Amino acid sequence: MSEKRPLIQPRTLKGFRDYLPTAAIPREAMMETARRVFRSYGFAPIDTPALEYEEILTGKGGEESDKQMFRFEDSGGRRVAMRFDLTVPLARFVAQHAGELGTPFKRYHIGPVWRGENTQRGRYREFTQCDFDTVGTTSIASDVETALVMHDLLDALEVGEFTIHLNNRKVLSGLLERLDLSERSAEVLRALDKLAKIGPEKVAAEMRETAGASDDQCARVLEFAGLEGDTDAVLRALAPLVAGSEVGERGVQELRELFAGVAAAGVSGSRVRLDVAIARGLDYYTGTVYETFLAELPEIGSVGSGGRYDELASLYTKQDLPGVGASLGLDRLFSALEHLGKLETRATTADVFLPFFSQDRRDDYLRLAALLRREGVSVEFYPEPRKLGAQLKYADKRGHRVALVIGDDEWEAGTAQAKVLATKDSHDVALEPTADLARRLRELSA
Amino acid sequence: MSEKRPLIQPRTLKGFRDYLPTAAIPREAMMETARRVFRSYGFAPIDTPALEYEEILTGKGGEESDKQMFRFEDSGGRRVAMRFDLTVPLARFVAQHAGELGTPFKRYHIGPVWRGENTQRGRYREFTQCDFDTVGTTSIASDVETALVMHDLLDALEVGEFTIHLNNRKVLSGLLERLDLSERSAEVLRALDKLAKIGPEKVAAEMRETAGASDDQCARVLEFAGLEGDTDAVLRALAPLVAGSEVGERGVQELRELFAGVAAAGVSGSRVRLDVAIARGLDYYTGTVYETFLAELPEIGSVGSGGRYDELASLYTKQDLPGVGASLGLDRLFSALEHLGKLETRATTADVFLPFFSQDRRDDYLRLAALLRREGVSVEFYPEPRKLGAQLKYADKRGHRVALVIGDDEWEAGTAQAKVLATKDSHDVALEPTADLARRLRELSA
Repeated sequence: MSEKRPLIQPRTLKGFRDYLPTAAIPREAMMETARRVFRSYGFAPIDTPALEYEEILTGKGGEESDKQMFRFEDSGGRRVAMRFDLTVPLARFVAQHAGELGTPFKRYHIGPVWRGENTQRGRYREFTQCDFDTVGTTSIASDVETALVMHDLLDALEVGEFTIHLNNRKVLSGLLERLDLSERSAEVLRALDKLAKIGPEKVAAEMRETAGASDDQCARVLEFAGLEGDTDAVLRALAPLVAGSEVGERGVQELRELFAGVAAAGVSGSRVRLDVAIARGLDYYTGTVYETFLAELPEIGSVGSGGRYDELASLYTKQDLPGVGASLGLDRLFSALEHLGKLETRATTADVFLPFFSQDRRDDYLRLAALLRREGVSVEFYPEPRKLGAQLKYADKRGHRVALVIGDDEWEAGTAQAKVLATKDSHDVALEPTADLARRLRELSA
Repeated sequence: MSEKRPLIQPRTLKGFRDYLPTAAIPREAMMETARRVFRSYGFAPIDTPALEYEEILTGKGGEESDKQMFRFEDSGGRRVAMRFDLTVPLARFVAQHAGELGTPFKRYHIGPVWRGENTQRGRYREFTQCDFDTVGTTSIASDVETALVMHDLLDALEVGEFTIHLNNRKVLSGLLERLDLSERSAEVLRALDKLAKIGPEKVAAEMRETAGASDDQCARVLEFAGLEGDTDAVLRALAPLVAGSEVGERGVQELRELFAGVAAAGVSGSRVRLDVAIARGLDYYTGTVYETFLAELPEIGSVGSGGRYDELASLYTKQDLPGVGASLGLDRLFSALEHLGKLETRATTADVFLPFFSQDRRDDYLRLAALLRREGVSVEFYPEPRKLGAQLKYADKRGHRVALVIGDDEWEAGTAQAKVLATKDSHDVALEPTADLARRLRELSA
């Protein structure tokens, strides 16, 4: 801390960012909303370390994740890595604590993860994941609940209209089984995944080339992928395409039960859609899959995705741990809300601003602020006696709702001016009783 | 993901730990309480990256911190390090964003930090810090507020009785100035710090040896350190000891104003104490200092500490950024509450448990659960139709309050059995209207 040391340039690492209050306040509010929804279903929080043994994390997320991992040798000579998602730590966690946790185990986990992403593509190297999973059951009731949680989350976050796209991986398997394409399913699905981008003809060409599909096989796959419309109609059209394939028929049945359950729970039919074209996480998901799109911003992609899997933790335990879960794209939703002008950006958490105006009354201000807080009003007291104009400018910039202005005369009279900062309206208010003052300030802050 | 790969042992790194729901639930509740208190004063959240340029973090926390830092070279060849506290990142943050933030800037920050601590001493290498600071003002009002926030935090966390110990570094400086010991203050204070452990005689011996203090100087220092009792009495006794030293007199005056402000805000005199023996963070703090002890567990040390500093960010900017802040010992408080049996340890976040009892009624259960959630009741629906006994055992273990048991007959009749799990009492309840059922379940869960 020598005075002569040259200044160090204050800066963050590439791909990392600070959250200033205007961003951190709504972000905290989003996480609180997510926790409230998770809890309403009995999902419980867990937390796991930022650092894990490298061997725990490698090989699970695929080559891409391995390459992007922040890893190093710690001072004890251990190979360690920073978690790149919350799913691998969950797998390690349930394998390690299975006995104590019991099943079904319903957990949520909100926390930062780290990836050495290419920052050229606007990606961040530290971001927050918001996951929930039900582990240890194959019941369709949990698939229904996963859709309901996603629905309630987006509803509570007030993102505008949205649609949850649902599919079942088994239906795809059934179709490919019926078409004798099971062996080349990876190639078929890789081609099919490009449908929206390159169109049916190029998809067919690719399927012919990479999967050796016949014209008829291509036509049947494209017919399937083109199914659209009312859920019941699509389900009716699907049934013959997979008839005779046990897994395919099971997939259709599961979709029927899924949509029935979601409807029973009161979700509007306009907010869920059977979308046979989604096939995400092919190596991983084995049943229901979920993607969620905002009506006003479909181009940002899915803001909540997930699916059902057979074996969560097979790298770490022989115990069968099937489950279903999804992840809310918190950062993406945050950007979306910002873009849509639906984020309120304030730099303060206090509704009421109390200017320090009357020099000798410091303790009186402190007392009043304390009394108001006890009545549930959030109050920021400006710490220095400055000109009122400068203090009100500060309050305006911060985003307080109401300034409670009390000068010498007001202290004498037991009154104050409550200024609504957005409208500049002033209201005379009595300082006592505090409960009444608090109520009035709450009204004016609303 | 080859089947032949041997299982990887699921384990956490030494010094790191998982939080299972029984711990994660009350920990989340503590953080929510902290956020609520911070916000009631207008402190706003910020967040900073886990990783920083190594040069930002080194040299600031002292040699001990440097040694304990997790640091490495990232794949882009940058020297990076994981943050070991939230104060150095705050300093970097305010230097970097000073223009946008404005002053006074009141922030809180709750987040994990990492230190390669010696795990032999029961230390963790990842733990959560919970800091709040007011930057950019020298007003004593902010010192008062810091004490008030600490008070409200501990009060809201229901930790039992506690005492906030207050002192002012300037008083110590004044005393040493008066005794012509300013030049040797580090040695004097290092000796004095051991008073409780080794007693006055050994402290005097050390002061004579390391600071070259005379018998009279030793006696005066020990007289000072021995001042105890009623705040006003101690303040009266302090005044003559520092009289003539400008900084010492200012320190006494600041203490007077601090205690007056805290009392004005309604804090009971039994919860604050002038403790001239505390002198923490000597290299750093320049005014008021804070330590907080639990009446039932004084031996765990301070659970909330902080102080006033002159220059927060002098490594990164020439701008003067004085401030005052403190840190809540969240992990320590968590252990304390656990130790005192004041933590409620449940493994679920849902009050109501809904057993899946009547095979063909899955969608009816899903509908009812959704309706109850809309009324604000948290409901966990068991996903599989199993024997009621097994399901109730699950609910007992998880810690649900009430099981809402609905079998075929109950569905027919539109009634249910609401079983209070703690007492085994059963109550007949009507399923409709849902608002009434919700109210009844809330009563039974209370």
